[in-house]
Amino acid sequence: MSGGTYVEPSFERDTTYITDRITVDGAGDGSGDGPWPVEAGRYRLVVARACPWANRAIIVRRLLGLEEAISMGICGPTHDADSWTFDLDPGGVDPVLGIPRIKDAYDKRFPGYPRGITVPAIVDVPTGVVVTNDFPQLTLDLSTQWREHHREGAPDLYPQALRSEIDEVNRWVYTEVNNGVYRCGFAGTQSAYDAAYERLFTALDRLEARLLNQRYLVGDTITEADVRLFTTLARFDAVYHGHFKCNRTKLNEMPVLWAYARDLFTTPGFGDTTDFVHIKSHYYEVHRDINPTGVVPAGPDLSGWAQPHGREALGGRPFGDGAPPGPPPAGERVPTAHNPHVGDDGLVHT
Amino acid sequence: MSGGTYVEPSFERDTTYITDRITVDGAGDGSGDGPWPVEAGRYRLVVARACPWANRAIIVRRLLGLEEAISMGICGPTHDADSWTFDLDPGGVDPVLGIPRIKDAYDKRFPGYPRGITVPAIVDVPTGVVVTNDFPQLTLDLSTQWREHHREGAPDLYPQALRSEIDEVNRWVYTEVNNGVYRCGFAGTQSAYDAAYERLFTALDRLEARLLNQRYLVGDTITEADVRLFTTLARFDAVYHGHFKCNRTKLNEMPVLWAYARDLFTTPGFGDTTDFVHIKSHYYEVHRDINPTGVVPAGPDLSGWAQPHGREALGGRPFGDGAPPGPPPAGERVPTAHNPHVGDDGLVHT
Repeated sequence: MSGGTYVEPSFERDTTYITDRITVDGAGDGSGDGPWPVEAGRYRLVVARACPWANRAIIVRRLLGLEEAISMGICGPTHDADSWTFDLDPGGVDPVLGIPRIKDAYDKRFPGYPRGITVPAIVDVPTGVVVTNDFPQLTLDLSTQWREHHREGAPDLYPQALRSEIDEVNRWVYTEVNNGVYRCGFAGTQSAYDAAYERLFTALDRLEARLLNQRYLVGDTITEADVRLFTTLARFDAVYHGHFKCNRTKLNEMPVLWAYARDLFTTPGFGDTTDFVHIKSHYYEVHRDINPTGVVPAGPDLSGWAQPHGREALGGRPFGDGAPPGPPPAGERVPTAHNPHVGDDGLVHT
Repeated sequence: MSGGTYVEPSFERDTTYITDRITVDGAGDGSGDGPWPVEAGRYRLVVARACPWANRAIIVRRLLGLEEAISMGICGPTHDADSWTFDLDPGGVDPVLGIPRIKDAYDKRFPGYPRGITVPAIVDVPTGVVVTNDFPQLTLDLSTQWREHHREGAPDLYPQALRSEIDEVNRWVYTEVNNGVYRCGFAGTQSAYDAAYERLFTALDRLEARLLNQRYLVGDTITEADVRLFTTLARFDAVYHGHFKCNRTKLNEMPVLWAYARDLFTTPGFGDTTDFVHIKSHYYEVHRDINPTGVVPAGPDLSGWAQPHGREALGGRPFGDGAPPGPPPAGERVPTAHNPHVGDDGLVHT
């Protein structure tokens, strides 16, 4: 999603999205004749590595091996009021969609689109229109609807038997943690901030307890729930701690969550899609209302991410009956300069 | 000193002060007939607990037991463009000076005083004029000129034999650390900030090495040098880490400096003069140019300050041939609500 806006007295996210779904039968209702059928090569996932909500989709696509079925356009980390742009691409234009800003694909779908221009968004390449930016549904559909295009050994991130528990954890992690850090950072009053801080750290303490003897959030393998928590944790010390004043402790002072985050970080798909330069650049440069100079902090020291986490001792099978993905495609690697733990092959090495 | 101002491209402190001195002979030049002789009950030290430069004077006055010889007026943590006020006092007026703002005593000395209205300042009570706000000299003079009024067992914070080393350390700590954090925080450009950050953490690494096998900065007892470093370290995680973007690591991630700071914190005179509520309130509420909302972070968790520091193993005699001061006078205690480690008697308990 694009950067939040300033709301008094407390931050509320505009959660109205384009909620179309891409489904096996095209309609998501079993009628079989909907407009957005699963079709390899037809759609383009547009992301920004900076954005935690887009990072979810990057991780899920990579874990499932959907790189060939769904191409990916990557926006740069900063943007103006017209939202994310393809400023990283030659000529500042997405090579597949032929547009300079993702806003163009929203406007093509709905002229004068009045809602938030956000990533992740999935664009129908033939028509150039946004199909969906409904990020919570989007990643679940990558798991459930695109199954025939998954790689060999792809994990089941949303197993049928665990869905109700995953859904419940996801709802709670979203309101308390994923969005909780924004509630702190965009609080316009002291009382709104104080309440948000209390709520956030209460939730983190609960997670610290939940994960003490349990390697993953739900079940004994990585699921969608871990993906969603990870992208917030990966940004915690780099931006939320200072920029959003989530500063009771750094993540690296919460031993269980820090070990859990490092465990995921070193699992293919997680740390290797984490671009700390883009992350810091986005928050500190875009949110001029809370960081007027736009100066980006040089810290934090990132060396700790590669320290042994010891979580293997809790058991668990990260990929269940599957296997980790190989290196990401050459064009989709996070450069070492943006994440010191990523090697030339695009994988995290410890 | 009052809050810094925004300077492009890099922060430079206005270091022009009223440099009069209060000396044994009144003139500081041996002539014996100067205007500002040492005289118990004549002067009032005006401070703000928030301010690191004033905190130095609070610590030194207390270590030396000068409470009865030099009274103390305490300004509240926040201020406007007219600088520090006595808003904590009944009616918002200092009970001894009878003025609402320290600015009044500057203007009485020099009508329309054009320089920074800063604390610490020493005011001549009979005339109500500021004698000096030359903070580096001011604390040294408390040690050297007010000796006859020192308490029994007062430490020698500026021993003759170590003065050149203390002076050298103080100069370097001032430019690299005390002022170095401000250079980061008030940098108006990325390049000024980047250079300031590099310089600050290079200095902190040097201190980490210097203090590894040595309990105090100079010699084996507490000196003026430790006082000056302490007041910056005490503010590091609470404000400089986030607000000033000094965020390579928190102080509590630099093991030697963190143990050194805790050692001092639990030494009478240091932690018991540290008011975290005033500190955070000052920086976050006054510097609206870098924190537009004025929201004050609820963190950091302060519990770590009382953890065993283990520095006794390095030897050293904190007070040399002297002894620690007793509890502070009742009117000068930092409330527990402002520093959780301070007890009802005004001392730090661990």
